[in-house]
Amino acid sequence: MNLVLLEPRDGIDSSVVTLTDARATHLLKVLRVTPGQALRIGLLDGPFGTGTVEAVDNGRVTLCCTFEKDIPPRPPIDLLLALPRPKVMRRLWAQLAALGVGRIILTNASRVERDYFDTHIVTEACFRPLLIEGLQQVRDTRLPLVSSHRQFKILVEDDLDDLFPSGIRLVADPGGKTSIEDALANRDERVLLAIGPEGGWNDFELKLLEAHRFVPVSLGPRTLRVDTACTALLAIAHSVLRRAPVRNV
Amino acid sequence: MNLVLLEPRDGIDSSVVTLTDARATHLLKVLRVTPGQALRIGLLDGPFGTGTVEAVDNGRVTLCCTFEKDIPPRPPIDLLLALPRPKVMRRLWAQLAALGVGRIILTNASRVERDYFDTHIVTEACFRPLLIEGLQQVRDTRLPLVSSHRQFKILVEDDLDDLFPSGIRLVADPGGKTSIEDALANRDERVLLAIGPEGGWNDFELKLLEAHRFVPVSLGPRTLRVDTACTALLAIAHSVLRRAPVRNV
Repeated sequence: MNLVLLEPRDGIDSSVVTLTDARATHLLKVLRVTPGQALRIGLLDGPFGTGTVEAVDNGRVTLCCTFEKDIPPRPPIDLLLALPRPKVMRRLWAQLAALGVGRIILTNASRVERDYFDTHIVTEACFRPLLIEGLQQVRDTRLPLVSSHRQFKILVEDDLDDLFPSGIRLVADPGGKTSIEDALANRDERVLLAIGPEGGWNDFELKLLEAHRFVPVSLGPRTLRVDTACTALLAIAHSVLRRAPVRNV
Repeated sequence: MNLVLLEPRDGIDSSVVTLTDARATHLLKVLRVTPGQALRIGLLDGPFGTGTVEAVDNGRVTLCCTFEKDIPPRPPIDLLLALPRPKVMRRLWAQLAALGVGRIILTNASRVERDYFDTHIVTEACFRPLLIEGLQQVRDTRLPLVSSHRQFKILVEDDLDDLFPSGIRLVADPGGKTSIEDALANRDERVLLAIGPEGGWNDFELKLLEAHRFVPVSLGPRTLRVDTACTALLAIAHSVLRRAPVRNV
C-alpha cells in the first residue's frame, strides 16, 4: 500500500479521521507508523494529500489530513472487456485499476459463459475493494467506473455512445492490419480498447464492433491469454499516449 | 493450445508420433480432431511444422509430422528477476514464455525471502510444463533458458557476463530518469531487463547493477506489483523492438 485512500464514509471530521479496518492494520503491522509521521493519502475520486499520524491506539490509527487543490485526471483509456471466467476476473480487478483505466465496460459475448454474470465477481461488493487495492498500490485516487452488460448487441448499438461519446475505438484482433502503436501515435483523444474472450470475438461481434467505429489492432503474432493481453495492451497504450505531444482528455 | 509442441522424448519415429498425455486429451476433448485433419505443430527449440492426424484411438492421437527448415529465433529479451513469492512465480512462468523471453535469470535480493529458493517452484519439474504451456498458447518453440542464483553479488560480478555477454542492460526503477521506450528506441541489440522484488532493490543492489552497465529505466509514476510490472515491461520492450529499423540478434 503506497497510498492510504480515504472516502466519505470514513467520516472525515474537521480533517481528522480514525481508521480501524485493514488500512489501520497495514499501517501498524507493515509500515509500523508512529505519531508525528506523515503519510501520503488521497481522497477517493478526489485530491492527494498528507495525513499526519496523531495517535496510534489499540489497532486504531488517527490521521490529521490536509489535501491538495487539484484532482488528478481520470486515466485516458477505457476498457470494453468480454467477461473472463471469475477466477481470472478476480485477479484482473486490481491490475486494471493499477495500470489505469477510466471505465470498465463488461460485456457478454458468444464465447463467454452466460452464468459468469451471476457470480459474485461482478458485484460492487466484490470488485470495489479490489479496485481500491490497485489504486493504493500505484497512488491513484480515480476509481474506475464499472458497468455490466448481458446483451452485447444492445450495448454496442444503444448504450456505447453514452458510455464513450468520443475518442478512438480499438478492438484487439489477431487479424488486425494496424498495430496499436500506429493507431495511437500522435493522438490525444480518449481511447476505448475492446478485448474479447478466450477464443476471440465471433464474426458477428467483430463486424458489429467495426460498424461502430472500432478499428482492429494486432499485438503481433503471439495470441496472449486474456489476462496477459489486458495488461500488455493497457501498458503499450499508456506508453504510446505518454509520448503524445499534447494530452488533453 | 494453439500449437502442439513435440520434443525428442515423444519418440518421433519416421515422422510419426503417438501422443497419450494431456496434449492428446486436449486434441480429443477440446479441439475434437478427426483423422485427416492438419494441425500446427512445433519441435521444442526446433522448427514449426504440420501434423496430420493419422489415427484417433482410445485417448491416443497419432500424427504424421513434417517440419519446416528454419528454426524461429530466440526472443531478443532476457529477464533478470528477483524471485517473487512462489504463488506469484507459479502464475508468471507461462506468462513469461507467452510474452517471449530468451532467458530467465532468477536471483536472490535483500527483499526476497531466502526460503523461496527451497520451494518446488524453482525446480525444472515444476516450471518446464508451465513454460511449454505458455509457448503452446502463443505458437513459439523456443523454450526460455532458466537459471537460479542464490547470491546476487556473485551473479552480477562473476556470472552475468557469461549469461548475457553483450547488449543493453536495463533495470526497472521508479527513480530512473530514462523511459524504457527511450532507452530502446532504434536499438537492435539483445536486451536484459532487471526487475526487483516487491519493495524494490536496495541501494547496494541498485548501485551494483549500475556499476555493471544497467541503466535505470522508469515505467512512469505508477509503481506496479512485480507480476504486472513483468508483463507491462516485456510488452512495452517488445513493442519498441518490433519498431526498430533492423533486427539482428
